[in-house]
Amino acid sequence: MNRIPRFAEYVSKGWINIKGKPELLKAKGAAENYDGHLGIGITNALFCSERAMKLAEVHGIGLVALKNTTHWMRGGTYAWKIAEAGYIGISWINTESCMPMWGSDVKSVGNNPFCIAIPREDGQIVVDMAMSQYAYGKLGVYRLAGKKLPYPGGFDKDGNLTDDPGAIEDSMRILPTGYWKGSSLAIALDLAAAAISGGLCGSDMDDNNNGSCTGCSQIFIAIDPYMFSTKEDVQTMLNRRVSIADSAHPIDLKHPVKCPGESTIARRRKSMSEGVQVDDTIWEQVCSIAEGKSLSGHIE
Amino acid sequence: MNRIPRFAEYVSKGWINIKGKPELLKAKGAAENYDGHLGIGITNALFCSERAMKLAEVHGIGLVALKNTTHWMRGGTYAWKIAEAGYIGISWINTESCMPMWGSDVKSVGNNPFCIAIPREDGQIVVDMAMSQYAYGKLGVYRLAGKKLPYPGGFDKDGNLTDDPGAIEDSMRILPTGYWKGSSLAIALDLAAAAISGGLCGSDMDDNNNGSCTGCSQIFIAIDPYMFSTKEDVQTMLNRRVSIADSAHPIDLKHPVKCPGESTIARRRKSMSEGVQVDDTIWEQVCSIAEGKSLSGHIE
Repeated sequence: MNRIPRFAEYVSKGWINIKGKPELLKAKGAAENYDGHLGIGITNALFCSERAMKLAEVHGIGLVALKNTTHWMRGGTYAWKIAEAGYIGISWINTESCMPMWGSDVKSVGNNPFCIAIPREDGQIVVDMAMSQYAYGKLGVYRLAGKKLPYPGGFDKDGNLTDDPGAIEDSMRILPTGYWKGSSLAIALDLAAAAISGGLCGSDMDDNNNGSCTGCSQIFIAIDPYMFSTKEDVQTMLNRRVSIADSAHPIDLKHPVKCPGESTIARRRKSMSEGVQVDDTIWEQVCSIAEGKSLSGHIE
Repeated sequence: MNRIPRFAEYVSKGWINIKGKPELLKAKGAAENYDGHLGIGITNALFCSERAMKLAEVHGIGLVALKNTTHWMRGGTYAWKIAEAGYIGISWINTESCMPMWGSDVKSVGNNPFCIAIPREDGQIVVDMAMSQYAYGKLGVYRLAGKKLPYPGGFDKDGNLTDDPGAIEDSMRILPTGYWKGSSLAIALDLAAAAISGGLCGSDMDDNNNGSCTGCSQIFIAIDPYMFSTKEDVQTMLNRRVSIADSAHPIDLKHPVKCPGESTIARRRKSMSEGVQVDDTIWEQVCSIAEGKSLSGHIE
């Protein structure tokens, strides 16, 4: 919801082509390559997730490489969809530069989210992990609340590691996840996405300077978890492992350990029954766009 | 070299079966499943890397899931080999628990290294990334040198984030890479490796309690980077992106930014011309084993 105003802005600027659809360019065995024609990032990515599963159905594993697409919004959506359909889902995206490479003090690599989801019938296990420790949006939330970050999230202008969100917003030196590790994985994911899809790499997007993720490259992989074992054996193992992880002795007895995705499922259940909380300002903007004021004149 | 004494010990205990070879259990399309029969981790993993490439040659992408194998030693080796042969390599492993899940104060998940390598002809780009910020071995190196860690590496017994290696060795609360992120990715990689291979998950290895990685599950994926684009276009993009990353403004002008793998290539070149530096104590142990003293009586 928060991103609808920006989506409308991008449409008005021609950075998103709402008539663009994925076009099959080439295929080989278990893999397909699509041009997203700058279409709507969400529908392009959903289409490619479906195709990856169709390929996995036949070949055990399926890969779809999508180039020239736009922001997929919540990255975890696609691996989650793949897991809901009974496959292991892996996906990632490259973005324009938004954080410093390790050893640099200027933004030089994307935060290139990597997602993996496991089809556990008692609750999907889903990781949706940007390569920066905190998003800029999160820094703003803490700063406005007058709070420090829970853990250091970047360097200040003098190069000191800090948990002061404002100091990091000033320096623009957000921290890669795990210091050098997140920086390394970010550049590797960028290269892999661009190489396989034949699309733009992060620095190409920097050159184009068309906002967030415009023209980006995305990879979707689906793997059949039941091709070598029975579904019952796999689900039994998943439940056994998750149950043991969740019962690991907690630091705080009031906060039991949770595997990734479990809390989201609980929040989602609440949202589905009670509705979704929307920021008032965002809601006004969205209503304004819907009523044809503001930017919506540029949208059909 | 440092791990040869432990390897010999594991052979003597029957945890590694030096006659074990990978056996094909099942195959589907672009994917194969092997039982490693507790064979030598390195040769099992090299075999499976080769098979993944053979599958990728035909299907564009190839996946090999190996169960019941042993420690693969340097994890990056296999993705690197795959990249040297001209494919994008992705591999990971599950291990016994060695770090706390996020929110726990006891070891409850493996550090499950994830590796990805890009076949850049002017120098492979390789990430070999454990899900703990520092290995226990690294903590010991810093403690013995009387040094603090460069960045916080865990919690002390009182639950405070610390850069004191000894305090972390005492608490055994090493930090996941990127706090909650490395913990989440670690459990997802564990589940995926065990599910696809039909092998042990991390907690199964904890139950067996047979040392490091004995009976573990591993995944090897190879992707043909030239199936949708010409080799020239891909290599040109890789060189463009790496060159831009490496020329990002450095924090310290004496230390230019490097993409992952580039420093390793330089070190390897030095090793190939000057030989490899080996710790004296390790060398004595290895010679002793080779001479049939010590543990080698148990090896053929």
